[in-house]
Amino acid sequence: MPEPLTPDGYRVLTRQEIAPLLAGWPTIARRLGGQPSQWTVQDVADGNLNSVYLVEGPEDGVCVKQSLPYVRVAKDDWPLSVERGFFESEYMQRVAPFVAGWAPQFLHFEGPLRVIVMQRLRPHVILRQALITGTRPKHAASAVADYAAASLFYTSDISNTFERKYQDVALFSQNHDLQRITLDLVFIDPYQVHPRNAYASPQLDTLAQSLRDDVALKAAVARLRNHYLAKPQALLHGDLHSGSVLVTSDDTRVIDGEFAWVGPIGFDIGMFIANLLMSWYAKAEQEGDVAARESYRAWLLAQVQTFWLRFHEQFLSHWTHYRGPSDGYPASHFTSASHAVGLRAIQADYLADVWVDTLGFAGIEIIRRTIGFSQIADFGVISDVAERARQQAAAIALARDLLLQPACYPDVQALVAAVQGFEHGGTR
Amino acid sequence: MPEPLTPDGYRVLTRQEIAPLLAGWPTIARRLGGQPSQWTVQDVADGNLNSVYLVEGPEDGVCVKQSLPYVRVAKDDWPLSVERGFFESEYMQRVAPFVAGWAPQFLHFEGPLRVIVMQRLRPHVILRQALITGTRPKHAASAVADYAAASLFYTSDISNTFERKYQDVALFSQNHDLQRITLDLVFIDPYQVHPRNAYASPQLDTLAQSLRDDVALKAAVARLRNHYLAKPQALLHGDLHSGSVLVTSDDTRVIDGEFAWVGPIGFDIGMFIANLLMSWYAKAEQEGDVAARESYRAWLLAQVQTFWLRFHEQFLSHWTHYRGPSDGYPASHFTSASHAVGLRAIQADYLADVWVDTLGFAGIEIIRRTIGFSQIADFGVISDVAERARQQAAAIALARDLLLQPACYPDVQALVAAVQGFEHGGTR
Repeated sequence: MPEPLTPDGYRVLTRQEIAPLLAGWPTIARRLGGQPSQWTVQDVADGNLNSVYLVEGPEDGVCVKQSLPYVRVAKDDWPLSVERGFFESEYMQRVAPFVAGWAPQFLHFEGPLRVIVMQRLRPHVILRQALITGTRPKHAASAVADYAAASLFYTSDISNTFERKYQDVALFSQNHDLQRITLDLVFIDPYQVHPRNAYASPQLDTLAQSLRDDVALKAAVARLRNHYLAKPQALLHGDLHSGSVLVTSDDTRVIDGEFAWVGPIGFDIGMFIANLLMSWYAKAEQEGDVAARESYRAWLLAQVQTFWLRFHEQFLSHWTHYRGPSDGYPASHFTSASHAVGLRAIQADYLADVWVDTLGFAGIEIIRRTIGFSQIADFGVISDVAERARQQAAAIALARDLLLQPACYPDVQALVAAVQGFEHGGTR
Repeated sequence: MPEPLTPDGYRVLTRQEIAPLLAGWPTIARRLGGQPSQWTVQDVADGNLNSVYLVEGPEDGVCVKQSLPYVRVAKDDWPLSVERGFFESEYMQRVAPFVAGWAPQFLHFEGPLRVIVMQRLRPHVILRQALITGTRPKHAASAVADYAAASLFYTSDISNTFERKYQDVALFSQNHDLQRITLDLVFIDPYQVHPRNAYASPQLDTLAQSLRDDVALKAAVARLRNHYLAKPQALLHGDLHSGSVLVTSDDTRVIDGEFAWVGPIGFDIGMFIANLLMSWYAKAEQEGDVAARESYRAWLLAQVQTFWLRFHEQFLSHWTHYRGPSDGYPASHFTSASHAVGLRAIQADYLADVWVDTLGFAGIEIIRRTIGFSQIADFGVISDVAERARQQAAAIALARDLLLQPACYPDVQALVAAVQGFEHGGTR
């Protein structure tokens, strides 16, 4: 569906236009309560791609998100189709039956304007910010694991006919602009000279060059890039990092599914783990009490373990309890007791394969977040560039090992145990 | 695109309607030459799914193929969407730029009637018949290999942007009826009790039961079924057996792409090899001179080798010479001389992975052609049921080993060397 960047009926909304617009949608207006004149509208955009407004009424609030026809941070230099609003809306509705409680409720999509209205969450903060400030949101890792296990299991070949699954493939593969961003920024740019790359220079020049020169590394990246392109296991969130999770001390919600893509499960899982690991490396030299810092870092690694183990357990649990149609693993093939044993071996193999992918995609995520365009605030808050580069280099050393030696990480315990060894540019 | 089996404007054409219809299409009428009254129309349908007519005019002939709203052999008991005509037409046009000379020329598609008009080939016969009668069409194996290498390479992630490749995925995954047939008949039915299964009973009862009871086998089948469902490497022909190839002594054309699907390359390759291998087993006890028979069997195994080696060589050659866009293996990652060495290793890994898939899909094809619904004439011409069952059991013994012990077949030489060992239900 090629189309102009700003199709008929689309315009960029100003803050002043939001309340009158919502007033025209009865279910939204009722939810806010009172009169439109009583509603407050706050511009809270902080991502790269969209307008986001929080609207408060006498009874409740809503969140309003509009796709912009450009990358916000680059504006006219980087035009972008507004179609992603449609795909985010489709993703939210597709996974909603499986992830209630772990995602904001979807309320409305206004097609021509590419406006999504969803449940307003309060007093949530972005998980990445919570990690930067050193708070410990309870259950965040296990809630994201629950979200991932349910959304991925119920959109996979395990729990669908191929007819249903390929509806998702056909739909989400049309999200061309954002998939092009993922391919270029995650999988291609960091391994070549490219003006979008944004690593600390000259501090990381040599390291970046060594990545470009490392044929074995690029072969490993090619394998994973081709998994991303040609291993449609399940409907991915596609951008499941700590900036796509809202938390309070005891509530966790996954947002921002506009990069949705039917791909390898390890892509979502590896990206989330990579961002926890980068948070760990970013804490290396922060001010304050060493014991407190190391305690926090231990908590971060515990979140990595919790996340994977909980994902593994929940994914298996969904599989064990599933009774519907399946083209991947038809029930008729696994009826007797001995077959049930065989199915357990199949399940173990399936998740072992997800784990290997997870390691590789985690390595790729770390490299693209330190070398590539989309730098993260965890490192960004470190004002001393040389110090920041040292910590990024440590994370990259781990990333490289994950890509080149995945067999050295047979399980999440092995991963967690290895993290510290790379802190000073060392090895396992 | 769910729709009724016989949409508006569709009707089953009779032989008498063909000439008047073609007369209305100027390019076809000019090709045939003379007046419609001079054209002869011959009904030559011998497959399961369609009407096929050969039309001869004073200057040339054409082949006319119409999708029927049911499986021909089962008629009203097995309704089938006529949409497959559209998908075959799309497949022919998609691969035409790469396979000219190895496929009949596409001439016309009449949408409402689901009629394809293509080049008439003469005096071609079906390769399967040629093998049954013991002729040795020259170049058939290498021509099919050339067809496969070109059609698969140029529709893969190696030679396409993801935007282009997923156009194919989105389109061909909508061919629901025929994909359902592949999934059920190839991957599911033979491993469970199903009324469509058509093996010799009671001769193969025990063997069929042992397949259903073999959890390790079903795990291997599950892995390959999930590759079929979720490893879209390239646009497959989807039904590339010896019944989909027309030959003369020195010309070879691949036909019948209505099962086209974006899937694992080894599916096409393994299916073709499996059908050559079954032809070998079917020759076991045929009358005539033993030396002549063994000479023919040696020729068959040579065709297996030629097919794989030629496919491998041609696929690599396309890759080496390709200079266009590639999301799978962007040229910018492999520029220097050392990187070229790395790329050669990547290419070797890619084709090694295709080989492993090929072994598994070959095993699956043999099992579905002996146990399942779609029996083949190579065995069917053996009138002694017990003898036929013995030969099928030998083929199944090989198939099982291919699925369970692929590592024992590191290359095509190992495969060819192992074939005879299974002839009397033995082992490698």
